[in-house]
Amino acid sequence: MNNNELLARRYKVMGEYAPLFYDKPIHIVKGEGVWLYDAEGKKYLDMYNNVPTVGHCHPYVVKRITEQVQTLNVHTRYLHETIVEYSERLLSTFDKSLNMLVMTCTGSESNDIAIRMAREHTGKMGIICTDDAYHGNTTVVDEIATQFHQGQVKGCNVKSIPTPDSYRPLGGLTGKALGLAYANKVKQAIDEFNTEGIGLAAMLICPILANESLPDIPEQFIQLAAKHVRDAGGLVIFDEVQAGFGRTGRMWGHEKTGVVPDIVTLGKPMGNGHPVAGVVSSAKLMDEFRSRAEYFNTFGGNPVSAAAALAVLDVIENEDLIENSQQIGSYLKEGLAQLKAKHSLIGDVRQRGLFIVVDLVLDAKSKEPAPEAAHAIVESMKRQGVLLSKTGVARSALKMRPPIVFSQENAYQALSALDHAFTELSQKGKL
Amino acid sequence: MNNNELLARRYKVMGEYAPLFYDKPIHIVKGEGVWLYDAEGKKYLDMYNNVPTVGHCHPYVVKRITEQVQTLNVHTRYLHETIVEYSERLLSTFDKSLNMLVMTCTGSESNDIAIRMAREHTGKMGIICTDDAYHGNTTVVDEIATQFHQGQVKGCNVKSIPTPDSYRPLGGLTGKALGLAYANKVKQAIDEFNTEGIGLAAMLICPILANESLPDIPEQFIQLAAKHVRDAGGLVIFDEVQAGFGRTGRMWGHEKTGVVPDIVTLGKPMGNGHPVAGVVSSAKLMDEFRSRAEYFNTFGGNPVSAAAALAVLDVIENEDLIENSQQIGSYLKEGLAQLKAKHSLIGDVRQRGLFIVVDLVLDAKSKEPAPEAAHAIVESMKRQGVLLSKTGVARSALKMRPPIVFSQENAYQALSALDHAFTELSQKGKL
Repeated sequence: MNNNELLARRYKVMGEYAPLFYDKPIHIVKGEGVWLYDAEGKKYLDMYNNVPTVGHCHPYVVKRITEQVQTLNVHTRYLHETIVEYSERLLSTFDKSLNMLVMTCTGSESNDIAIRMAREHTGKMGIICTDDAYHGNTTVVDEIATQFHQGQVKGCNVKSIPTPDSYRPLGGLTGKALGLAYANKVKQAIDEFNTEGIGLAAMLICPILANESLPDIPEQFIQLAAKHVRDAGGLVIFDEVQAGFGRTGRMWGHEKTGVVPDIVTLGKPMGNGHPVAGVVSSAKLMDEFRSRAEYFNTFGGNPVSAAAALAVLDVIENEDLIENSQQIGSYLKEGLAQLKAKHSLIGDVRQRGLFIVVDLVLDAKSKEPAPEAAHAIVESMKRQGVLLSKTGVARSALKMRPPIVFSQENAYQALSALDHAFTELSQKGKL
Repeated sequence: MNNNELLARRYKVMGEYAPLFYDKPIHIVKGEGVWLYDAEGKKYLDMYNNVPTVGHCHPYVVKRITEQVQTLNVHTRYLHETIVEYSERLLSTFDKSLNMLVMTCTGSESNDIAIRMAREHTGKMGIICTDDAYHGNTTVVDEIATQFHQGQVKGCNVKSIPTPDSYRPLGGLTGKALGLAYANKVKQAIDEFNTEGIGLAAMLICPILANESLPDIPEQFIQLAAKHVRDAGGLVIFDEVQAGFGRTGRMWGHEKTGVVPDIVTLGKPMGNGHPVAGVVSSAKLMDEFRSRAEYFNTFGGNPVSAAAALAVLDVIENEDLIENSQQIGSYLKEGLAQLKAKHSLIGDVRQRGLFIVVDLVLDAKSKEPAPEAAHAIVESMKRQGVLLSKTGVARSALKMRPPIVFSQENAYQALSALDHAFTELSQKGKL
């Protein structure tokens, strides 16, 4: 069937608002490692998908899922070894204060529970997030999806702060003064919650601000903000849905922040595509929540989900993928620095392991965003067989988060294609 | 490893509040059809689990999952045929007004979206449920989990009505008067919402009131209640998470109600254990929601989830499982009627296909619930190698929802074990 026919059928049963990538959507039929193949056999280098983090259809993950799905797949109200083994293995990668896990099916469910836990614990309702955030899609988690609501939160129980950013800094400040200025915004939000009688439950942020286009987070911001939150009796929730599982060249995105969170939420890459997610906290917080909430998640942590997640941990470890994220990430950053010197559209290159954002600007001084250029580059890369996407308030930054099995050869191909795309764009004189 | 050791390890990483069945939890390691096996090799007839609805580890479902997981598992922002084919196949089983599907990962996510859709559509916040309801575990869906909050809703945006019940009827009424009385409770709740300025968004109920212990729903209640809801501009949401996919001897639990709902939510059995769920509505409602909400679910409807769900539809059709639910359900009901004549503890037997509830009472006239007897029967059945559970406000009713591949031979075994359990209990003179 051709793509137009399939698209028409899709519109009929899923609607035109179910999101699709690219001006003309692509019809992917097969995945292998860092490669995706469309229905016509065209091969794409995948620089976008962070969910199949150890590579599309990784044979070991496939093997473990296949074995388990033909043996047993039931809920967690019977004893089963795999979920216990997985919990032990996963928790051993965190600070020892984070010693209990509840498994769910999606990052949205995880953030929803984290918010419930914080509200149960504090008896307060207020949640602080950034003004370019996305943490999921349940009613309550959507209240903090400022990215989808023109920077605004929904309802009276959430407040956003300006996204901490060193490239387009608040008040033009730098260094510690900048971190302090953003942290003061957190303090202000807390004071407002208190004045309004709402009080503070938690600050919920991604420790690398992945959806906020991965800014270089101003010095000491996270530490100062966390102190304000804790002084007010609130909890610090780190959303590791994108930052976690080796993506940043460390196991967890928060390792470099100097802050041990009270709650960590997990999702996307946890099962390499299998719907598995989780929430980690201290035993005290978890018991407090579960003893009050009678929480149960039918599919959460079932034997197949636990096997998939355990296989991902095995692969990350056995294939040294955290090290790989670091090395290939650095290689890409160097390459992009060279492209920046050559192409004036590139305003800023930001990188944490294999999470990379390239901020495109019309002018290096004014830093005016270049969304049309970003769109053109993404489409050019697609034509050249490389998949990436856009991010940032103006959708003017390129977003790259390949499977972390990405090799130097893959990186070289991507850099060459990017060089070509930028050259082509400037020659067309479109800007 | 013995069960005590595994339990101790589990407590450490998952906590003591993560729910487990039975006085001494069982350690299940293998499933096949209607059978589960524990670590010591003991075989159990599974009369409890509705999720592996076409049988534990059904070979065809396993085959389709295995094939797809090794081919491609990515999100729905690329075109893919399986989700489109699944949507078409699924929607063809509904009234033609229900013609669009959004796939999610859990029934909780589905009910959360349904509530968002209704609130978007009406601009009102009020949700009506029953006083013994459970529809999932997100913050907002938990507000209507009256079953977990001593019959109470949470917050000001939800109201519950007494569970419509013909066995312990409101005011001792019968026939149409009873249905009318319960429907009037819905009307009262709507009036209160309007007085309070909250207004009505939707009534959200399971069309067979599965979690409310499957009462014989009073005549015309659902039709009258739906009319009140619609007259007030609200939507009718039917939660088919337990009632759907052939369980009741029909494809959908609402087929006999005389009401076509505005929104249907799906979950548990949809992927035979794979975390897949969904929401069905008219294109108009779905487009309205999606155009405003930018809803996206990373894992929802991915190729593996869609393949698993499609395989379940195939098996239900190819193995005539709806017919089987009807036939074996009737056989069980007849057998239970015979046991009722013999054992005075059995107060009421309620059945919809292969969903069966046996209400235990200390006295047939007063209908005083017998929770201790129910507990003893469940434990006795476990010893005899048959798994079932409890339900009802007082946890005094036996709940049976086996995989719908349950055979007459399986049913005979279950009935014999029940007969033995009741006989043993009465001989012990425990009551």
